[in-house]
Amino acid sequence: MNITIYNEFIHEKKDPKVGGIYPDGIHGAIASFMEKQDGVGKVRTVTLEMPEHGLTDEVIADTDVLIWWGHLAHDKVDDAVVDKLQKRILEGMGLVVLHSGHHSKIFRRMMGTSCSLTWREADERERLWVVNPSHPITEGIGAYIELEKAEMYGEYFDIPDPDELIFVSWFEGGDVFRSGATWSRGRGKIFYFRPGHETYAHFYNPEILNIVFKGAQFVRFRGNTKVKGINSAPNIKESLEPISSKE
Amino acid sequence: MNITIYNEFIHEKKDPKVGGIYPDGIHGAIASFMEKQDGVGKVRTVTLEMPEHGLTDEVIADTDVLIWWGHLAHDKVDDAVVDKLQKRILEGMGLVVLHSGHHSKIFRRMMGTSCSLTWREADERERLWVVNPSHPITEGIGAYIELEKAEMYGEYFDIPDPDELIFVSWFEGGDVFRSGATWSRGRGKIFYFRPGHETYAHFYNPEILNIVFKGAQFVRFRGNTKVKGINSAPNIKESLEPISSKE
Amino acid sequence: MNITIYNEFIHEKKDPKVGGIYPDGIHGAIASFMEKQDGVGKVRTVTLEMPEHGLTDEVIADTDVLIWWGHLAHDKVDDAVVDKLQKRILEGMGLVVLHSGHHSKIFRRMMGTSCSLTWREADERERLWVVNPSHPITEGIGAYIELEKAEMYGEYFDIPDPDELIFVSWFEGGDVFRSGATWSRGRGKIFYFRPGHETYAHFYNPEILNIVFKGAQFVRFRGNTKVKGINSAPNIKESLEPISSKE
Amino acid sequence: MNITIYNEFIHEKKDPKVGGIYPDGIHGAIASFMEKQDGVGKVRTVTLEMPEHGLTDEVIADTDVLIWWGHLAHDKVDDAVVDKLQKRILEGMGLVVLHSGHHSKIFRRMMGTSCSLTWREADERERLWVVNPSHPITEGIGAYIELEKAEMYGEYFDIPDPDELIFVSWFEGGDVFRSGATWSRGRGKIFYFRPGHETYAHFYNPEILNIVFKGAQFVRFRGNTKVKGINSAPNIKESLEPISSKE
Repeated sequence: MNITIYNEFIHEKKDPKVGGIYPDGIHGAIASFMEKQDGVGKVRTVTLEMPEHGLTDEVIADTDVLIWWGHLAHDKVDDAVVDKLQKRILEGMGLVVLHSGHHSKIFRRMMGTSCSLTWREADERERLWVVNPSHPITEGIGAYIELEKAEMYGEYFDIPDPDELIFVSWFEGGDVFRSGATWSRGRGKIFYFRPGHETYAHFYNPEILNIVFKGAQFVRFRGNTKVKGINSAPNIKESLEPISSKE
Repeated sequence: MNITIYNEFIHEKKDPKVGGIYPDGIHGAIASFMEKQDGVGKVRTVTLEMPEHGLTDEVIADTDVLIWWGHLAHDKVDDAVVDKLQKRILEGMGLVVLHSGHHSKIFRRMMGTSCSLTWREADERERLWVVNPSHPITEGIGAYIELEKAEMYGEYFDIPDPDELIFVSWFEGGDVFRSGATWSRGRGKIFYFRPGHETYAHFYNPEILNIVFKGAQFVRFRGNTKVKGINSAPNIKESLEPISSKE
Repeated sequence: MNITIYNEFIHEKKDPKVGGIYPDGIHGAIASFMEKQDGVGKVRTVTLEMPEHGLTDEVIADTDVLIWWGHLAHDKVDDAVVDKLQKRILEGMGLVVLHSGHHSKIFRRMMGTSCSLTWREADERERLWVVNPSHPITEGIGAYIELEKAEMYGEYFDIPDPDELIFVSWFEGGDVFRSGATWSRGRGKIFYFRPGHETYAHFYNPEILNIVFKGAQFVRFRGNTKVKGINSAPNIKESLEPISSKE
Repeated sequence: MNITIYNEFIHEKKDPKVGGIYPDGIHGAIASFMEKQDGVGKVRTVTLEMPEHGLTDEVIADTDVLIWWGHLAHDKVDDAVVDKLQKRILEGMGLVVLHSGHHSKIFRRMMGTSCSLTWREADERERLWVVNPSHPITEGIGAYIELEKAEMYGEYFDIPDPDELIFVSWFEGGDVFRSGATWSRGRGKIFYFRPGHETYAHFYNPEILNIVFKGAQFVRFRGNTKVKGINSAPNIKESLEPISSKE
């Protein structure tokens, strides 16, 4: 399983507080964990400023799971790259979208909705409750994951009804949020996971990283089914059964 | 319930066979049926060639259900109009997509997938089986609807797993197709219905028109819920509950 | 729309506090509201102690929506009555299950799961957030409903993944709960709604009663589709299409 | 992964044609394939006539996946055994239900519906089309599986809307059927797969056996999540957060 981690990598350079938490970038922190996991092959990191944001045809073709973190510069991501990513996801590439990636072009493209939500930065306690205990992503974990401090994301979260709702968050300030969910799109799968605000060290928290990794395993490339009708609409002139004359 | 019917209106003018079946256009045939139904207010028809395809801000704001038929010129539809339609659907406008509208920009935008499928023009018998007998769209109908001749649409149909799968088609040539389905997106609802190839008189068939109308009723504008978080992401600075200091 | 309201009617007679809140029983409070709503025909109330719990063949056959409240005596409900209710729901009768009805025989029968949950009686504030703003049940309401005091119900709630998740509750004590949801079963529909502990006056609260009524409208009897294969498995000897010899 | 295969084992002994196809029983044919697959531990076979149908507490506790084939004697299965199986599935045991097992007590118990359908024995050609190409069960297979002769099962199939619809069948006689589907229930997962009429050698067909095996892998025991609220409803007296006084 080859993993590519996209991070826009702006906060870390602009804001000393964030840079202090993530000296190697959010992508670096995630990559460092992923590299040590069983069954993981190449781990690449790519950032906004790279040509094509590092998401060249070669990289995309060699990626089983794309992990996405962005916040300040969603609109700087090239539409041509988004087009390629969408096509590849429909062919089977997995996508894991983290936290503020909810507003990324690629997530909004795949969802078809605004992916908006309500939010508040107030160092709130968050508790992510498991509502899908038969799912591989929750295997082996407790009834909830608790974060001492988190940015609040609240409902209404404008997403399509998930194929699988996995976590629902409780926030100290009185809000709830569907904070872990999956969708199938074409031959690909998508996992959204809420934690990961840049001012917290969530991407050093083993409970959080474990869920990101399990999510990656769950959505990993599986584009082998030989169905027709993804990204092209073939005219099947020969029928499998005889067709009677209607005259 | 105000209904707006979009038809690209090209086949009818180019192909005498189609023009003979639909002298007032596919939009005209559908409009003529809708105008006679209980609870229907204004019925507007709009076509590709009109400025903004007839889908001005005023028309969109006054539309409860938009019915869409297109085939040859999906790429001629203005992206700015598609942006407005998506925004309005998320706010509550209903969308009914017919037949080859599966490849329209607005349907692909709302689905996030390629919406591709396999197809064959061979005058095949089609039988649309009801697989959701508790749904308002199927109320009062039989176990299936039969069409003597139809274009074949086959799987894999590249759509998100429907919120509600309503019809599954059997085709004479050996294929099946998920031919009626609904999705919720934001405050809006979408219904896709397969029949309606331009060379057949399906839009004079009362069984088919009845389903299109029931679909319109089902997806009609219902944008009254006062949730926040659709098309904008408000910062809710005041919390409903006190938040403890974490220092 | 004929509505039948089942209440086990024990708390009100045993516990003066509950009897003081609901002198005519929980069923009486709900019935009094339903009788005043547009489109409502007969409103019947039935209780555990009646022969067949009041759910005779005649009553069942004349019921479009059955509303269920029970708590102390789920096991006293006759299995033969549960069998009849299940059959009738599959034929199209609607079911609205309230609060502690989650553990009723009929709800567990329809769900196939234990329908267990965690709970606490501690006068907690509850906030039911809307997560499905395109649903008829939420039409016209705000972003949430707030209850000053409620019994807590928490996850994991052992139900099948709902067809439609409508409300998610936040509780003061740190829990969340999927507190409003619908399921289709056969030709029938089911709505579960969490509020309504016997020691609170929730069934005089117009916001709560409004949701119960909208739920009843949503699940009302719609058993008219002429599909075959519900409650019997017919042998269809004649095929619709010719079948070739395979010798 | 320990697999237990239940077969009622009556047809094979009563009907020489069936006995000729399955001299070791349907269970024997399936077991013989499963034993050779990677990652499979103990493979047990149990039959109706065994005490407790072979499904003792010890066997149930040691089973990761239960595969079920029955037809003539569903009503002979002991309700006490069904109770135990339901409880164990909710705790995480996987269930694969084959063909006429759709009418078994355990499948109907888990679904909450009649699980009825229409049917015809006429040596029809069947084609199972893949409608979920991102699912592990379809990984690596073609666009469809074809069976030269099959019993017909037709809609309406009275099941809850599947969590994942995987196959839709086309039948020569004009019918369609949702022939492969999954559901989560509690911590357990269920897979229904249609092929396998006793008069055909489907359980020697590697394409069919491969799907049964992939289904078993998908639903295998995963009861490790430490959620509370399955099969018991604990009173959580201590809250995670302080609860304010409401007086």
